Amino acid sequence: MTMQAIVHRLTMQHPGDLGALAALFDAGVLEPANVAAVIGKIEGNGGVNDFTRGYFSFALATLMSERLGTSRAEILERIPCVLSGGTEGVLSPHYLVLERRQSGAPPSSAGKRLAIGVAFAAPMAPEAIGRQAHIDGIAGAVQAAMRDAGIDDANDVHFVQVKTPCVTTARAAAAAARGASVVSTDANRAMAYARAAGAFGVAAALAEVDRSALTDQAMLSDFAIHSPRASISSGVEVDRDEVIVLGNSARWTGNLAIAHRPMRDALDLPAVTATLAELGIAAAPQVSAADALRIRGVLVKCEPDRRGAVRGHRHTMLDDTDINAQRHIRGAVGGLVAGVIGDGRIFVSGGAEHQGPDGGGLIAVIAEI
Amino acid sequence: MTMQAIVHRLTMQHPGDLGALAALFDAGVLEPANVAAVIGKIEGNGGVNDFTRGYFSFALATLMSERLGTSRAEILERIPCVLSGGTEGVLSPHYLVLERRQSGAPPSSAGKRLAIGVAFAAPMAPEAIGRQAHIDGIAGAVQAAMRDAGIDDANDVHFVQVKTPCVTTARAAAAAARGASVVSTDANRAMAYARAAGAFGVAAALAEVDRSALTDQAMLSDFAIHSPRASISSGVEVDRDEVIVLGNSARWTGNLAIAHRPMRDALDLPAVTATLAELGIAAAPQVSAADALRIRGVLVKCEPDRRGAVRGHRHTMLDDTDINAQRHIRGAVGGLVAGVIGDGRIFVSGGAEHQGPDGGGLIAVIAEI
Amino acid sequence: MTMQAIVHRLTMQHPGDLGALAALFDAGVLEPANVAAVIGKIEGNGGVNDFTRGYFSFALATLMSERLGTSRAEILERIPCVLSGGTEGVLSPHYLVLERRQSGAPPSSAGKRLAIGVAFAAPMAPEAIGRQAHIDGIAGAVQAAMRDAGIDDANDVHFVQVKTPCVTTARAAAAAARGASVVSTDANRAMAYARAAGAFGVAAALAEVDRSALTDQAMLSDFAIHSPRASISSGVEVDRDEVIVLGNSARWTGNLAIAHRPMRDALDLPAVTATLAELGIAAAPQVSAADALRIRGVLVKCEPDRRGAVRGHRHTMLDDTDINAQRHIRGAVGGLVAGVIGDGRIFVSGGAEHQGPDGGGLIAVIAEI
Amino acid sequence: MTMQAIVHRLTMQHPGDLGALAALFDAGVLEPANVAAVIGKIEGNGGVNDFTRGYFSFALATLMSERLGTSRAEILERIPCVLSGGTEGVLSPHYLVLERRQSGAPPSSAGKRLAIGVAFAAPMAPEAIGRQAHIDGIAGAVQAAMRDAGIDDANDVHFVQVKTPCVTTARAAAAAARGASVVSTDANRAMAYARAAGAFGVAAALAEVDRSALTDQAMLSDFAIHSPRASISSGVEVDRDEVIVLGNSARWTGNLAIAHRPMRDALDLPAVTATLAELGIAAAPQVSAADALRIRGVLVKCEPDRRGAVRGHRHTMLDDTDINAQRHIRGAVGGLVAGVIGDGRIFVSGGAEHQGPDGGGLIAVIAEI
Repeated sequence: MTMQAIVHRLTMQHPGDLGALAALFDAGVLEPANVAAVIGKIEGNGGVNDFTRGYFSFALATLMSERLGTSRAEILERIPCVLSGGTEGVLSPHYLVLERRQSGAPPSSAGKRLAIGVAFAAPMAPEAIGRQAHIDGIAGAVQAAMRDAGIDDANDVHFVQVKTPCVTTARAAAAAARGASVVSTDANRAMAYARAAGAFGVAAALAEVDRSALTDQAMLSDFAIHSPRASISSGVEVDRDEVIVLGNSARWTGNLAIAHRPMRDALDLPAVTATLAELGIAAAPQVSAADALRIRGVLVKCEPDRRGAVRGHRHTMLDDTDINAQRHIRGAVGGLVAGVIGDGRIFVSGGAEHQGPDGGGLIAVIAEI
Repeated sequence: MTMQAIVHRLTMQHPGDLGALAALFDAGVLEPANVAAVIGKIEGNGGVNDFTRGYFSFALATLMSERLGTSRAEILERIPCVLSGGTEGVLSPHYLVLERRQSGAPPSSAGKRLAIGVAFAAPMAPEAIGRQAHIDGIAGAVQAAMRDAGIDDANDVHFVQVKTPCVTTARAAAAAARGASVVSTDANRAMAYARAAGAFGVAAALAEVDRSALTDQAMLSDFAIHSPRASISSGVEVDRDEVIVLGNSARWTGNLAIAHRPMRDALDLPAVTATLAELGIAAAPQVSAADALRIRGVLVKCEPDRRGAVRGHRHTMLDDTDINAQRHIRGAVGGLVAGVIGDGRIFVSGGAEHQGPDGGGLIAVIAEI
Repeated sequence: MTMQAIVHRLTMQHPGDLGALAALFDAGVLEPANVAAVIGKIEGNGGVNDFTRGYFSFALATLMSERLGTSRAEILERIPCVLSGGTEGVLSPHYLVLERRQSGAPPSSAGKRLAIGVAFAAPMAPEAIGRQAHIDGIAGAVQAAMRDAGIDDANDVHFVQVKTPCVTTARAAAAAARGASVVSTDANRAMAYARAAGAFGVAAALAEVDRSALTDQAMLSDFAIHSPRASISSGVEVDRDEVIVLGNSARWTGNLAIAHRPMRDALDLPAVTATLAELGIAAAPQVSAADALRIRGVLVKCEPDRRGAVRGHRHTMLDDTDINAQRHIRGAVGGLVAGVIGDGRIFVSGGAEHQGPDGGGLIAVIAEI
Repeated sequence: MTMQAIVHRLTMQHPGDLGALAALFDAGVLEPANVAAVIGKIEGNGGVNDFTRGYFSFALATLMSERLGTSRAEILERIPCVLSGGTEGVLSPHYLVLERRQSGAPPSSAGKRLAIGVAFAAPMAPEAIGRQAHIDGIAGAVQAAMRDAGIDDANDVHFVQVKTPCVTTARAAAAAARGASVVSTDANRAMAYARAAGAFGVAAALAEVDRSALTDQAMLSDFAIHSPRASISSGVEVDRDEVIVLGNSARWTGNLAIAHRPMRDALDLPAVTATLAELGIAAAPQVSAADALRIRGVLVKCEPDRRGAVRGHRHTMLDDTDINAQRHIRGAVGGLVAGVIGDGRIFVSGGAEHQGPDGGGLIAVIAEI
């Protein structure tokens, strides 16, 4: 028996609308037990008070628990659900349901095919967040997810999505009560450290950077150190690391594959077209309608350049008191990538510290080949 | 003596910073008397309470009045200054100073060159706004600006910027006192009618649409009627139409030319590359750094599609209570165009009713050839 | 057997957090079957894209269905749940669970006590919304809810919360397909008409205004016509009217009562203190900590004055492109009322057309007496 | 000759509108040379990208320079102009022009009268900002302004407005080039330190706190240390401290006086009524229309409580990605104070670290007595 990865790209009318997934279950197209992970772009603000993530997760857990006859809590501990709030500009709310299916077919003889692996780490003490133990924990989880995906060679990994805990006021207080101190008592700063540790963990697992260079001092400081395959989100809703590894494997069958590129800045259009080209899709200048149908998922990380300029020209994202900088950059990079592909269903997430080049980010595309 | 058009693309540290223009004056590079018009993209919110436009205009009038020895009021009546607020995403605050210079050189023998014309209409009664007389008034001003530019053939016009009055509460009351009624007492609606009349006026002047089709009923209703060269802004700060015509003319000299294309929607990347190609600039996929230096100005109009979807995929711009829809679309389209050119100095303006195809807009580029 | 009304004022950590209600159930303090209605103030933006309302409703329906052994749909059709998004400034997220309990005690001999009634109208055709049939439908539902509350005299009604359908694009299209037309195709305008019809329906049911004066022409036009006891919300999530009537009745027992006052504008502090005084609570200038404990619920409606000034001084709420006007006014009036009471748990809702005086609104307070 | 203080409370149509001041000059009511300082509440967002402050300052400097025959730069170095952006909720844009006039009358025999003093410190090195030298510099400037006001006893000072420089990226770089380091390279953090140093400087000058307690360690840490009379703003537009002292003095004449109170939190209504009572104005519950005419200026500082709750109830200001926390708190406290007085012309400013009690702030009122 071989495994086959299928990506269902579904749309929603609002953040609690899982009707499209329920319809797939009802039609027998998708077995609930085959759902390996969910990655979604939803229409909240993407900030601290974005409750659309909780709403979708609750609705998903309710649906899955009803279909699988388990508790909601069990679902949340078994199926990673990674959501990015903010469908600025032309971005369109959607979610990818990653299916793993037993297949009677042999592995594809035409080349490696999309492989999906997931892993959950053990719960983590708040004082470990953003420090060396955090890096090691994530590296271990990434390697476990690679094994789960049947990927031996780190070069075959193209996108690693990590969801990792952050320091909350309550967690910091609990640590203090034990005599331990957290990496930062500033919530946003601690969250940035968590993302940095996540990126460092991925870089370590994939041997992109020498482990000895991944020091505490380098975090949020030496931005030359980065992983062009790491996509990290940090949030209060988890107490341990969740990892989704997407890559290509000779052991899998089907017709999907994945490719990726770092983006050097928010204007890096060539990175988009190069990624597509690797999957045999031309953008001259735009992907044809026929080729667009082959695309199953587009995953992007980006950042408002912290130095205040893009290619030498001042931007105003960081000083805007009205619109959060992450909303600005998602809208801009989303507009660029959607324009190349001709489709607004793009997963674009901000907070890209050490995830791709400084001031840039990365792009991964899943497509039929 | 022939005329030569020069476009100075200047940057600013804040909306009241005209230091770069003052420096050009001080260096003798630009004669104050040669300034024909100013078009700027500044970092306000682009909404009703965007006071950065007033700030820049006041600072410009102060500088020009000091250099030309005239009053501030005189400057504002002689030099059209069109500003669009909102530098969302990668957009970079900048302004174009359009210079008209007497040249000893003959007209370019290598082809038509950039020509600039301006015109001011007579003050308009508020009850005329958004109606047939408004269309005719703008059409007349556009033709006057074409004559000022030395352009005989409407096909040589590539971009028409109009600044036109809107109905304010006070103006509506004044009309009512005379027994006249305005097109709408809803300020936003009346402003949309003013923009529609502006677009219709440009379409009439350029003979793009049969004058008889430009009815009151068609305004804000039949969006198939549009001008792909009209860029209209409507505001309280003016009491009469101001028009800037940009085109190419065999009577002008220099090395600049302008081209334009309609954009069919917010993802119309091919329109951007086609406009550049007409100026001999390749985007494969991105404009080279050398070619980017040839570009002097990029002017874009766009709209959040009022039907709620782009190419069949739902967008969330129109229902967002936190971020104005025009800010969303400027960020997205700005990100796309800036990505093609590799430069965030793009003038992107919303409110594109009848200015380019419904749900889309238009692009014009000025470049060295 | 008499009835007793109990108001549980509960707090939440996020919009999906019903832990406090579940705890009351678990502790046996509140029988799930006794829950008559829920009124909540939650931390969304209060606008079209406020999904916290849907999140809370879904979580409430899930909890209640699990405790009552019914479907989620059944819960939503039986228990009115009215939510107002937006906890601007000092407002604190909370919800009131209105309990109706059978009591062995006789009706209070010391005076009338808080009575709660609810009613659901029949589903309504979209073309009826905002018109005479809508007014009559709501008036009928209000009278049904009064009967449900055991209130005979309209003077004993102090607060009527109505949740009424609005016209959506889909509903307008369905009406058009039948050859019927809706009151307005502008969604916000149609929603304002729905609120106006709601207020007119309450005014009719309570005989506050002569029925013949409640014309279509008066809606959104003659703001002198209003009900100082009507609180209307209109939304896509309902297809028929839901009504909660709160008043005082000689047939009920317990120790709670309700009082109300119109607020003439956003600065009407005397209306707040007069309402409290009627319940025997002094604010000199602030409610004492002991008296504050007697207060169970504070319900406020308010509006940014559409004439652009409050007591002759210009406000900037209506022209703010960054912050929605309703968010502004909720924050200001919430700050005032919370300051008098010394507590941020105030239900403050905007969109007060014909609900209290023009530019003002109303206040109702439930307290122990 | 004695001095008389007159406060002109003027309104504006937009942030560049100084027509009301020009009219006072034209009418001979106010001599331009008598303008001592300006304090204004204007309709920007109050954040980093609030350019309405620059617009107003530029327009004021232009007007004053035309009337006094001096340069704009000279005006800005002589007349302190302190502006707070953000007229949330019912707040109304206005500015106070503080006039000092020679009077033939003797000092008031009925008691101390309003006295105004100003002072400018020497320019400050960026590395001094937010440190001990900064505290001393401000303390010195406050004492100079007290002397300028003819106030000997610190108890007669009721409000000290300080405008102090902040660390910018450029200033930090300049310091680094000299081998000096700044207090924080995080711009917002450095600005908070500057405000803390300002408050400490006022506390030192007024002997409110023992100088030895005003340590670097206490800044932004021990919030029990505060001045209930300090109102500090920090901004890029100044390179040295500007101080306005308002108090009462036996050497001045006229009919104005000032009083103040600390506000213990955002609900401290009793502080408002107590301040008014000291000036002989009752609020029972609201100031009468007649008494409201006696009020010339209301000055408030406030803060969103950094502990996340007000009187034990959770607020959501600090976690709101859509609306800045300072905008929230200004709207709420402004609504409260305006409600007591019945007038939206209240100067409310955020960023109140060490300015009044933690989580609260202060209020000062100028009125006819």
